[in-house]
Amino acid sequence: MSDRRQFRDLVDPAVAHGTISSLDLDPESETVSLSDARGRVLAERVDADLDVPGFDRASMDGYAVRGRDTFGADEADPIELDLVGAVHAGTEPDVVVGEGEAAEISTGAVMPEGADAVVMVERTAEVYSDDGNESDEPPTAVVVRTAVAPGDNVMLAGTDIAAGARALGPGTRLTAREIGLLSALGVDEVPVRGKPTVGIVSTGDELVRPGEDLHSERGQIYDVNSYTIAAGVEEAGGEARLYPHAGDDYGEMERLLVEAAEECDLVLSSGSTSASAVDVIYKVIEERGDLLLHGVAVKPGKPMLIGEVGESAYVGLPGYPVSALTIFRTFVAPAVRAAAGLPEPRTATVRGKMAVRERYGEGRLRLMPVGLVTDADGETLVYPVDKGSGATTSLVEADGVVAVDPDTEYLGEGEAVDVKLFSPDVRPPTLFAVGEDDPALSRLLDRLENPRFLPVGSREGLRRLAGGVPDVAVVAGPVERDVDTVDLGGWTREWGLVVPADNPEGVADLADLVDRDLAFVNRGRDAGVRASLDAALDDLADARGVSQHDLADAIRSYEIGSKGFESPARAVARGNADAGLGLRATAERLGLGFVPLGTESVRVRANPKRTAKPGIEELKDRLVAADDVFASLGGYESD
Amino acid sequence: MSDRRQFRDLVDPAVAHGTISSLDLDPESETVSLSDARGRVLAERVDADLDVPGFDRASMDGYAVRGRDTFGADEADPIELDLVGAVHAGTEPDVVVGEGEAAEISTGAVMPEGADAVVMVERTAEVYSDDGNESDEPPTAVVVRTAVAPGDNVMLAGTDIAAGARALGPGTRLTAREIGLLSALGVDEVPVRGKPTVGIVSTGDELVRPGEDLHSERGQIYDVNSYTIAAGVEEAGGEARLYPHAGDDYGEMERLLVEAAEECDLVLSSGSTSASAVDVIYKVIEERGDLLLHGVAVKPGKPMLIGEVGESAYVGLPGYPVSALTIFRTFVAPAVRAAAGLPEPRTATVRGKMAVRERYGEGRLRLMPVGLVTDADGETLVYPVDKGSGATTSLVEADGVVAVDPDTEYLGEGEAVDVKLFSPDVRPPTLFAVGEDDPALSRLLDRLENPRFLPVGSREGLRRLAGGVPDVAVVAGPVERDVDTVDLGGWTREWGLVVPADNPEGVADLADLVDRDLAFVNRGRDAGVRASLDAALDDLADARGVSQHDLADAIRSYEIGSKGFESPARAVARGNADAGLGLRATAERLGLGFVPLGTESVRVRANPKRTAKPGIEELKDRLVAADDVFASLGGYESD
Repeated sequence: MSDRRQFRDLVDPAVAHGTISSLDLDPESETVSLSDARGRVLAERVDADLDVPGFDRASMDGYAVRGRDTFGADEADPIELDLVGAVHAGTEPDVVVGEGEAAEISTGAVMPEGADAVVMVERTAEVYSDDGNESDEPPTAVVVRTAVAPGDNVMLAGTDIAAGARALGPGTRLTAREIGLLSALGVDEVPVRGKPTVGIVSTGDELVRPGEDLHSERGQIYDVNSYTIAAGVEEAGGEARLYPHAGDDYGEMERLLVEAAEECDLVLSSGSTSASAVDVIYKVIEERGDLLLHGVAVKPGKPMLIGEVGESAYVGLPGYPVSALTIFRTFVAPAVRAAAGLPEPRTATVRGKMAVRERYGEGRLRLMPVGLVTDADGETLVYPVDKGSGATTSLVEADGVVAVDPDTEYLGEGEAVDVKLFSPDVRPPTLFAVGEDDPALSRLLDRLENPRFLPVGSREGLRRLAGGVPDVAVVAGPVERDVDTVDLGGWTREWGLVVPADNPEGVADLADLVDRDLAFVNRGRDAGVRASLDAALDDLADARGVSQHDLADAIRSYEIGSKGFESPARAVARGNADAGLGLRATAERLGLGFVPLGTESVRVRANPKRTAKPGIEELKDRLVAADDVFASLGGYESD
Repeated sequence: MSDRRQFRDLVDPAVAHGTISSLDLDPESETVSLSDARGRVLAERVDADLDVPGFDRASMDGYAVRGRDTFGADEADPIELDLVGAVHAGTEPDVVVGEGEAAEISTGAVMPEGADAVVMVERTAEVYSDDGNESDEPPTAVVVRTAVAPGDNVMLAGTDIAAGARALGPGTRLTAREIGLLSALGVDEVPVRGKPTVGIVSTGDELVRPGEDLHSERGQIYDVNSYTIAAGVEEAGGEARLYPHAGDDYGEMERLLVEAAEECDLVLSSGSTSASAVDVIYKVIEERGDLLLHGVAVKPGKPMLIGEVGESAYVGLPGYPVSALTIFRTFVAPAVRAAAGLPEPRTATVRGKMAVRERYGEGRLRLMPVGLVTDADGETLVYPVDKGSGATTSLVEADGVVAVDPDTEYLGEGEAVDVKLFSPDVRPPTLFAVGEDDPALSRLLDRLENPRFLPVGSREGLRRLAGGVPDVAVVAGPVERDVDTVDLGGWTREWGLVVPADNPEGVADLADLVDRDLAFVNRGRDAGVRASLDAALDDLADARGVSQHDLADAIRSYEIGSKGFESPARAVARGNADAGLGLRATAERLGLGFVPLGTESVRVRANPKRTAKPGIEELKDRLVAADDVFASLGGYESD
């Protein structure tokens, strides 16, 4: 462990940007069919190779005539022309229109020889041989009540697009309308810029692909970065290729990186947080390629590697998911987009105001992951999330990144900042809720559009609501903290001890938990059910004339609280515990036994400044109409 | 033609919107692999089915210890713990940490039994048996210079995500970060909303698919609407299916519509402008389905049909490409998006100011196709395009649609309007140029990002520039009109008569054109070369003491001007003409002969209010550096 490489002489982030954009990621152009061309970028100019229309075309239903023949005709003084035939769209004319003659013509049909104008049908009347009465015989002549000049209601060949004209330039992004123009030109194959191929090599012996079996006892975790970055690559217009995960062993890493470099325009490595894996990659790049840059004065992302392996570019991303996505978004996605010929989407950056004051001052560029929330006026507020915890959940809390200058000591509350969104499709949540995790709440959230909920527990939720960032806190059980909030409604839920089905230990009440040596799984202090349990224990201590502390001490593992609301019940289900703190609804869902200890109230409490926000109003409406939710959960009642 | 159906009792557009949204387009949900899930919309809530991490996890490189053992340790008074082994990420610990002991641990590794905290490596030193000097022997103990509390630098199982927690709600659009969360949960298959399948039946006997042979003499044209609307369907999140084009015959149309209805959630028909085709569809829908609505008080789109065929919804679009896209964008795309579970993209609507005054007052909702141009300050200006001409080129000039209320008599210059863009990816051009088509200009435009050029000819170009909408006009030849412009630069080009290779008729000069009966193809009056030819003819008339009119009359087809700058030369190449008006560069490109008649100047003239606009500055720079372009074109010289 003593020879671990230290990162010295960190380079400026601008140099890192420059180095990445100097790398050649440009794919070769390719030809795609018109049906597959949407969203692609033209590699070359497309000129018209034919006239559109390719013939003189009637642009009205009516009669093809010689314009000169109609001069002077009007309603009062119509003229009559002999009918010599008809021309329909998609057929070759088999008539010639001579002086004093007309041919019926439909919109889009070829003008017959001799005719140079069309009289619209509304200004004509058919004439039948039997004195104007309709019969089975076709009309023999047409009465024209208006004059037309040569060229009227005719679109000359090439008027729309002339052969030889520049139709679409290189670099044009092909949307519906450009596809339309190309089809008008008869183009069914289009030269487009290739998509840069980006290979993603995940590192770390502990990584397992989603869908495979996970051995937690060996410290395995699912590979998050490969899939996140692959999606980011595709959002930026690249084509992602995942390479089977590499261990931290030199030979394996070398083989994989070289293989990926041969097949891709850019190779990214990502996944491991361990310095030893970074070391191995460093050595492979030094020996099999060209290491251009090692270490950037940016947080996160300091140990970024930039180099080349064979013909391919290489960038090493940090290991924590939000950090990897942050560095990808900031340094790599622009290069992928440029290689794909795509502009930065207009929605990729939003402006907002800091919801809180944020101190800084580390002398390095900080790429601060932030979440977005809107205030009652719809203005976007920005708050920092994930201060390097490495939590994957912050992936979904973080909407984007704010770049904080090295010289900035703090960002003031209300200060305007630009947020680079992680994806152009990211939208601020319509409702930002925090607090107690609860099955009824989950179903209510399902009825809202794009809500955000962080299950931080009642106590922490209320603390955050007091901090002013979230819209609402969901608070269960007895509450100590006094926070100014607006109550939106709530429900009650039955809590107690979840025990194995049929309650084999015959647990009957709280006294059993204290007096018998049961393997117990508790919840953490932020959970509402824990506050209810503590209060019940207080009552029992009072009744027995002892301290609550003495009773708690008598319960095995009382101080170790699990985070998830289902965790104690799941431990019971796995056979790892005799009893767990939880809800009747959870016990029923998992087919377990339940010993009721009480009923607690769950309240949805709103930030008083946000009550006019549509997302909060919507939640309030949903709360009123949630009887079906409460009825479906054992031990729940509306309030 | 007399029994053509009239459209009476036009319904309000709001009713049409309501009818379409009442149709059931919702596809069934489906399951896709995680790699294919990007951009899709979750059909159901996804709850965490496991704890993340699944074990107590070291979050630092260092030593796993019992926190209690380190109490009181600091730099001045370190403590020493016996090293009992090591735990690496991805392996199962094979040590137990007892009192006074420590195990080396790497980030991400499973905490060994007995240990409850990690001391970071930077606050430790290894101790070797041979009095602290490094040797080949492994270290036997570690010196700890800091105290850690139980839980320090350890992430407890389930801290990140607890099993049972709500991870992502139904309706969530899956971007990179949601993909990351799903992979953390080990999810490799995702329940997503299906894409509504939209069948497109093109109608009209005259339509030919791009890539197939076109018989212009029969009035065939390429099918534009099918491909345009298919791309629009995909942009809205649907899946488009093209059905082989249907003739206007009842049996064929019935077979196709019924087949499409069986296979799709929605069927659109589009393509024909002929009332007879609309009639046939009308009859099929009435007999094989349910016609819900026929005729809407909107321009364009009045004859819109809305109905059902079997289980499928049906909407009939108008025939002109811009009209079809307009109706699709306004009425159909929102329904496709809703069925796909996608929100309207934020970029789908932009606000701008009318660049010109536009009169109206027809008492129907007008969906006015508009183009966008930015002024010098970057503000978006909006101008009407395509007043029902049916030109496919206006597809690329029109960026979107402004809905003009039936009561509005006019939109004033400078009035704010909302533009629904045809595609969310549509961007206003960086430069809007009009005027003379020219091969050097085409190459210059290739060097700009997203320019728009309309080849309307010099005279019309200057007229439009005077109207204040475009940024620049490209003007060739002698100019009568006096317009206040800023000259950005230009070039000269040699013009004359394009003749067959080797000049079989031995055409020598303009006099030959006048005096001999040559089959001649002229350009239109808006073309700069035509102005040069007229001027040369003036000179010849002066020299001969006759009127220019007499000379022009002597030239066959002098008055019929073709639109494309290459059209006369192409007529010569096809053997349809003895001589055509054109450029030396064109003759050389097509391998034809050339009789020079003069040199004319081409000037790029800018709107004086826009000279500070970046796109104009860029064009000016490109003009200065265009010597390679002029050198590559015969008869061109920089100016």
